[in-house]
Amino acid sequence: MYKIAIAGAGAMGGRIGAYLKQNDEDVVLIDRWQDHIDEINKNGMEIQTETETYTLEIRAMQPEEVKEKFDLIILLTKAMYAEDMLKALKDIGAITESTAILSMMNGLGHADYLSKYVPKSQIFLAVTMWTAGLRGPGQLLLEGKGGIECQRSDGQPDERTERIVQVLDNAGLNAKISDDVFFSIWSKVAVNSVLNPLCTILDKTIGEFGEYEDAREMLTPILKELVAVANARGTNVVFETLLAKIEATYPNEAQGLHHPSMHQDYTNKRLTEIDYLNGQIAKYGDELGIETPTNDLITHLIHQLEMKYA
Amino acid sequence: MYKIAIAGAGAMGGRIGAYLKQNDEDVVLIDRWQDHIDEINKNGMEIQTETETYTLEIRAMQPEEVKEKFDLIILLTKAMYAEDMLKALKDIGAITESTAILSMMNGLGHADYLSKYVPKSQIFLAVTMWTAGLRGPGQLLLEGKGGIECQRSDGQPDERTERIVQVLDNAGLNAKISDDVFFSIWSKVAVNSVLNPLCTILDKTIGEFGEYEDAREMLTPILKELVAVANARGTNVVFETLLAKIEATYPNEAQGLHHPSMHQDYTNKRLTEIDYLNGQIAKYGDELGIETPTNDLITHLIHQLEMKYA
Repeated sequence: MYKIAIAGAGAMGGRIGAYLKQNDEDVVLIDRWQDHIDEINKNGMEIQTETETYTLEIRAMQPEEVKEKFDLIILLTKAMYAEDMLKALKDIGAITESTAILSMMNGLGHADYLSKYVPKSQIFLAVTMWTAGLRGPGQLLLEGKGGIECQRSDGQPDERTERIVQVLDNAGLNAKISDDVFFSIWSKVAVNSVLNPLCTILDKTIGEFGEYEDAREMLTPILKELVAVANARGTNVVFETLLAKIEATYPNEAQGLHHPSMHQDYTNKRLTEIDYLNGQIAKYGDELGIETPTNDLITHLIHQLEMKYA
Repeated sequence: MYKIAIAGAGAMGGRIGAYLKQNDEDVVLIDRWQDHIDEINKNGMEIQTETETYTLEIRAMQPEEVKEKFDLIILLTKAMYAEDMLKALKDIGAITESTAILSMMNGLGHADYLSKYVPKSQIFLAVTMWTAGLRGPGQLLLEGKGGIECQRSDGQPDERTERIVQVLDNAGLNAKISDDVFFSIWSKVAVNSVLNPLCTILDKTIGEFGEYEDAREMLTPILKELVAVANARGTNVVFETLLAKIEATYPNEAQGLHHPSMHQDYTNKRLTEIDYLNGQIAKYGDELGIETPTNDLITHLIHQLEMKYA
């Protein structure tokens, strides 16, 4: 039996876990939110889709309650809680030498700090284009379609990558092996590093941000710093492509009416993932001798804002 | 008789005008705020100091109502309205070849656009360390002490500079001739270019901004860009001195409890003077081939915010 843990079972973790469970995989949801855990264990996970609402039985627990060893742990906590989660699972013995750790989190740098606990050959990276919502404890809102790209974090192909992707794909998650997952990671980070912090700082929707006549001029230096850093790290993202990707989000039919997730985190007085976006770009820049003044400034602005809720 | 106009008779213009009038100079206040003009003409200017409240009779009018020619016009509008004010006074014939135009406004670039209307030898620049408040139409609040430094905008000494400074100094305004007014202008701009926009963007007091543990690291690139541009333009401001000047504002006993004026403008849904601070630094940088990415970004952030009230 292939044993799977979803470590960080919020909206996205819930979606991945639910799809796997519905395909009869052995899945446990691991989270730190006790009300959510209790609700799932008592009444099951309530799942609302475009067409129906139903209940799915699935196990949920705190990491300290885990009594099994996993073949696959899918990390989907907020980035800043991933290390604590992995450490808790390692301490309790849930991770063996054959456990695959799959980070599906947004942002940069995850393989680096995770490799303090397991070798990079055991760490896998994925980018997901699925979205998901949580309406309350134990209540998932699943709309739209998505996909997943996955690769071992050291870039090497192996049978475990194939197994992981097959398990995900069989569950309807539209997964495939990537031969350059960092290209997808940096592409997603590009959009998030511009729109997440700027819409948060400005308290604007993506569309309102895009309405500014100098929006392109405004974001160009931020994006150019990112491209320079990504390229120096061997990922050949291209400025014009990323710019087009960002600008494609502005129309109302795209994401214009929405606030990015960082805006929601900030509004709800939660810490943001800025250190895994612009903050990590700036950190890589430091290491490489590439100047990143606008990413530095954005990181500081968000940290200054976070202080209000400290 | 030496005829003086205060063009832009808000808080600071009111203070300068009142001091001159109290010293029996021939002073007229020129402004665009009709309620303010009407109140001053009907009931006089009410002046509240630390020790007393009294009323001063002084003339006030719109620029189009002016029927005299002036020896000295002290410009103290918000920066973005100065050109319109000067043009209106020129059109109505209030400016002759012997009129001295004295800009006492905050920010950079005033002599440049004013020289479209009068030669630079007729333009004088001053930096004031006075402060002033306006409690309502015709109601000045005058506290604290200050000083004024003044120089002809082309750097040349002349008798008119001496006359202007003497008139101001005789009125108790503690004025002196400067031999490098741009040094004082850039020094004041340094403080304003950091604290004004950042406290506006962050909705913080100066003290709250300073409480951030990485405040110095955050503002260093902004200030370094300013120093590079100022130095390239021949003004030898020094990074460490300006940094100390900024950090000296943080304590509560200094300005820690206050929001900078740009924050007040923005909160009151008025346009800000960003284009005469960070925006002008960026413009000079463009001309000089000096990169100013953080000043660019700050300028864009404030313009994005201003759009909310457009």
